[in-house]
This record gives sequence, structure tokens and C-alpha cells, in this order.
Amino acid sequence: MYKVKAYSAASSTSPMASTTIPRRDPTENDVQIEILFCGICHSDLHQVRNEWSGFMPTVYPCVPGHEIVGRVKKVGSAVKKFKAGDLAAVGCMVDSDGTCPECKAGLEMFCPNVTFTYNLPDKHQGGVTFGGYSESIVVDQRFVLRVPTNLNLAAAAPLLCAGITTYSPMRHWGVTKGKKVGVVGLGGLGHMGVKFADKLGAHVVVFTTSPGKKEDALRLGADEVVISKNASEMQKHAGSFDFILDAVSADHDIMTYMNLLRRDGSLVLVGAPEKPLPVSAFGLIMGRHSLSGSAIGGIPETQEMLDFCGQHNITCDVEVIPIQKVNEAYERLLKSDVKYRFSIDMASLGTE
Amino acid sequence: MYKVKAYSAASSTSPMASTTIPRRDPTENDVQIEILFCGICHSDLHQVRNEWSGFMPTVYPCVPGHEIVGRVKKVGSAVKKFKAGDLAAVGCMVDSDGTCPECKAGLEMFCPNVTFTYNLPDKHQGGVTFGGYSESIVVDQRFVLRVPTNLNLAAAAPLLCAGITTYSPMRHWGVTKGKKVGVVGLGGLGHMGVKFADKLGAHVVVFTTSPGKKEDALRLGADEVVISKNASEMQKHAGSFDFILDAVSADHDIMTYMNLLRRDGSLVLVGAPEKPLPVSAFGLIMGRHSLSGSAIGGIPETQEMLDFCGQHNITCDVEVIPIQKVNEAYERLLKSDVKYRFSIDMASLGTE
Repeated sequence: MYKVKAYSAASSTSPMASTTIPRRDPTENDVQIEILFCGICHSDLHQVRNEWSGFMPTVYPCVPGHEIVGRVKKVGSAVKKFKAGDLAAVGCMVDSDGTCPECKAGLEMFCPNVTFTYNLPDKHQGGVTFGGYSESIVVDQRFVLRVPTNLNLAAAAPLLCAGITTYSPMRHWGVTKGKKVGVVGLGGLGHMGVKFADKLGAHVVVFTTSPGKKEDALRLGADEVVISKNASEMQKHAGSFDFILDAVSADHDIMTYMNLLRRDGSLVLVGAPEKPLPVSAFGLIMGRHSLSGSAIGGIPETQEMLDFCGQHNITCDVEVIPIQKVNEAYERLLKSDVKYRFSIDMASLGTE
Repeated sequence: MYKVKAYSAASSTSPMASTTIPRRDPTENDVQIEILFCGICHSDLHQVRNEWSGFMPTVYPCVPGHEIVGRVKKVGSAVKKFKAGDLAAVGCMVDSDGTCPECKAGLEMFCPNVTFTYNLPDKHQGGVTFGGYSESIVVDQRFVLRVPTNLNLAAAAPLLCAGITTYSPMRHWGVTKGKKVGVVGLGGLGHMGVKFADKLGAHVVVFTTSPGKKEDALRLGADEVVISKNASEMQKHAGSFDFILDAVSADHDIMTYMNLLRRDGSLVLVGAPEKPLPVSAFGLIMGRHSLSGSAIGGIPETQEMLDFCGQHNITCDVEVIPIQKVNEAYERLLKSDVKYRFSIDMASLGTE
């Protein structure tokens, strides 16, 4: 075991503050990574403030962060894919049983024994896992990803959650050239949805409540922008979408969007509004529409996504901050005051 | 034009009563059918009582009936598939534009210009279409189906709506051997869902609130019956279903069933509860679940269904009644007091 600097929350009401945490010495299958950048995901904030107490209560101290990009420092004897000096990335998962049907299908996020990158029991060193708001991390090679060398690293970090969360459903539901794709909500997830749908060749329509976001949506790759409060603008698109990615976590009327689907179209939720969504049975029956959900993505698909990003030079739009500004960033996140994701420059931890 | 005996409702509060209606003389593409049996669908009752005034207000007098089996009396000069004396069937549709993408895909029910068998504008003779509670009907050959000769005709009639409504989603969502299929609600639709899922080779589990239906569900082809009020029995099936057909029109908690889906499982509504269904986003996201709807089925698939029924000797469980008992049957329908569908013996009209 060795000690590393990190930022943690001591309770649901404490600010994030400097601390030290233990990391295991790499075993034969482990990759030890010096963390260069870690994205800030809204999940970090939910977990730190124990807002998911119902299904994943927070264990304190809590070190969040699951959008990790860094450089390999050391590898175990059985690790062949990585060597010291390589770029490497870690996303939302650091372990799974590897034997269940979900793991065999490359969908480790649905493994009943998945270990998330933070706040789940750490089978190596006890306690719970600690995430990427830290100097370094040690992860089984199965959960370490290769990062294309042409990508800006600060901007690549959020691909590990915001990227895969939007890429995976587009691949699963067959977004390709010739399809009409909607993206609801232009935030951390939505802006990546636009980039992916565009590069996958689809005709991309962004729905937003904010006319001010129109120009930016077009810059990101949208072909059209619809102000969702404008009923007549919405009506023009009735029955025309193959696929709609709904990245809004706030309460909203999803039937407005379901009605824009063409026959056999799917609306897929990646945001998770707290209250149940009222769904009209007739809205599903007429047109054989589907309402579905999607959660991050498996390890093979995460690598595919990173490779796709390398190929098309896709990264997230980020605002890079030092770790000392994380509390301020959380407050701004609550106001959607970021375009479109914060990425923490972990070099700033060295100054603590 | 010629006149035929029929039963119609004069207003939303009138009982069904004997009348005469006009039918067109068959044109070159028409098939004139002497109606032998007509099933009673809950839609008939909704339409007669104008309970769908919001989206399909009833035009009176209203002659319902869209589960029609009969014998061909006469065919137009361009009709090659049928000849006088053949068995023939007509379902929920009698016309569509034939040129739109939905028609070309064999999904005429989604054609923007579909003509339902009753209560939609009749382009041949003006007014609205009159359904199967009548002596005979004249229908374009595109919408006339062949009936396997081995089937009991009274019991075959409800295949034209209850049959295709349950068969189509099972085929679309890939119900086959090796799949675990749930059927929620054992009524007119549900009991056909059980028969089809069984003959398609699936492991079939019926969910019912009535312990008294257990034996019958097993007789119909279920492998297991779960009393849905029993939480521990339900829990045993958590995360295990590939497909669930939900045939319940009354308000019910669909999340109870969504949670029984395995990864990538689909719950498909064929019943249409009036009130919006509350859906949990997390319940969709965890397991990449889908909630979908399905409406009857296209003409090619309806023929496929009838052929499948001929091959496997599948018909509906019916109680045959004379037309004079239709008002009583409607009252019993409201109490689910029928196993499992009424079929009207149209010979009874001759006695009027």
C-alpha cells in the first residue's frame, strides 16, 4: 500500500477537501496510473451529497471521479497491453466478476458483481473504492482503456462517462447515415450526443428550451435546432425521428418527444429524472414506439468509442479547473453554468 | 347498392338494435362476403358508447365488428385469390392508400390514410364504414384474408383482432424457443398471447390477480402462473424475462413488471390504460429495458398468423351467442364475464 493525495467529502454536507488515501501496490494484473485529468460528472455531486441514499448510500470519506485519463507508471507481471509511459483511461467501473452472461457479453455495467470506480466495496483493500480526484489509481487491466494519442487529454477525460453514455445507445439503436436523430438537452451528455450523432452520419436535431444555445448547437454538429417550447416548431417534426436521445435529468414531458418518433422509433433516456415519467399507452401503441434507457456502456464498447473519437478527433468541450475549485464547480454545475464539462487538472493536487 | 340486415347503435346511450344498412355492389377488386361469425372486441363497446370521442368520435348509426369470418359470395373481375364459396376473413382495416412507406412495409395499420372496418369515412359509398355485425360485407381484396379450412369458424373470428394484436408483437420482438415470456392479464387478448407464446416455443408465465384463473392458464399453455399480488412470488422472477406482453387495460403498476425484465428485455403494451402510466427512468436505464406498444398488425402478418393458427390448430376460446344477446354480452364484457371472447353467430340475424 502507498499513500496518495486526494480530495474527499467527509459527510453529505461537507465541502470537498484535501486528504490522503491508500492505494494498493499493483498486483500482477494491475495497472498503476498517474492521473492527469479527471472530469466532473453530475453523479459525483449526487454521490458526495448522498442524494442516491435509496439505492447506493454514500460511504464517507468519499472520493468521487470516474472520468480518468492518465499515464501508466507501473504494470503487473501479467499485463501485456500496457507499459510504463503509455496513456491510459479508467471510466465508471474497476471490476466485475468476469464470468456472468453480462460480462461475457461485454456489458460489465450490468454484472451483478460490478465494482464502480468509487463508493463500492473494494475487494483488494477493504472499505470502498476511491475515484479519480486523486494523484494515482491502481486498476485491473481489464478495466483500463487505451487513449488515442491525438486527443487533448483534458478534453478526453469526460469521454469515459459522458462519452460512452451517449455513444453506446446510438450504436445499440443503430444511429447511422440516413437516420434522423434528436438530442434533448444540451449539457454535458447532450453535447456529446450531438457530436457522436453527427459523426455517425445522422441528421441531428437539437431540442432546447434556451434560444441562446442555438448557435452553439450548430457549431457542435446539429443540422437543426428546435426551441421545444414552440409548439408549432415541434409539430413540424411530428412522426419523423428514428431515434431521440433524452439527456435531461429535470422533470419534463417526454410524451412531447415520443410523439415526434416515426414508426418503430425509440426514445432513450440517459438522464434520470427523479419523479416517475407519465407515459401514454396510446402514444406507444400508435407507431410501435419504444421508450428505453441506457447506462454507460461495456468495456469493449468504451474502447471502441475512444478509438472512434481518435479517428474523428472528438473530445468534450471542457473548462479545465484546478482541484481547489471543485466546490465552486459543483455549485456552477447545479446552475448548468459550464460549457459543457469540467475537467480537473490533477497537477494542481501537487500544490496542496 | 344492396341492403343487408345489421345491428347498430343509434346513439352513445342506445342499445344495439336491428336495422338495415347499404352495401356497395362489388367493384372489380372487391370481394363480397356472407358473414358467418363476428367476434365482439372491447373496441366495439368503446366505439358504440363514444368513449374515444377525443380521437375517433363515433358517427351514428354505428355498426361495429372487426373480427369477421365468412364465405365468399361473389368476386370482382380483377380478383384472383378468391372465388365464390371460399372461406374469407376481414379484420380491423378495409382500406389504405397502398403507396405510403407504411403500406409498402406491410404495416397498413400505420398508414395515414387507413380506413378502419367501422366508423371511418367510406370512400366508396359516403358516410362511414359499417362493420361486421351484419349479414354481408364488401371489401377490397387487399384486405381480405384466407382462413385455414381446419379451424372452427366461430372460434377463428376473434383471431382477426385479438389474435393478430398478440401475435404481431411476439413476432416483432422475437419470441421463440428458449425465450422466457410473460403475459399480464388473462382476458380476450391475454389468453391468445399465452397460446401463441406457447406454440412459438417460449417458456410462458402468466401473471394474474385471480388465483381462480391458474388452472385455465395452464390449460391454455402457460408453464407457470404467478399471482401478481404475491410480492415474494414476483421477486423470484426478477430480471428474468425476455419479453412481457401486457394486455391489461385497467390502471396497473407497470414498473412491477418492468423490473422482471432481463437485460435488453421489452414490455409491450397491447391494452391501453386510460391514465398515463408512471414510469421510472432508473427502471429503464438499469438493464437497458424497453417499454413499447403494439397495434394489431399488417395484412401480410395477419395472413401469416392465420396460417400459423391453421398449422397449430389455434383458435380463440369463445362463447357463441346470437346477435340478439349482444347488449347482454356488452354488460358481461364490462365484468370480464366471458371465457375468453364472444363470437356472434350471424345466422341469428336471419331470424330478425
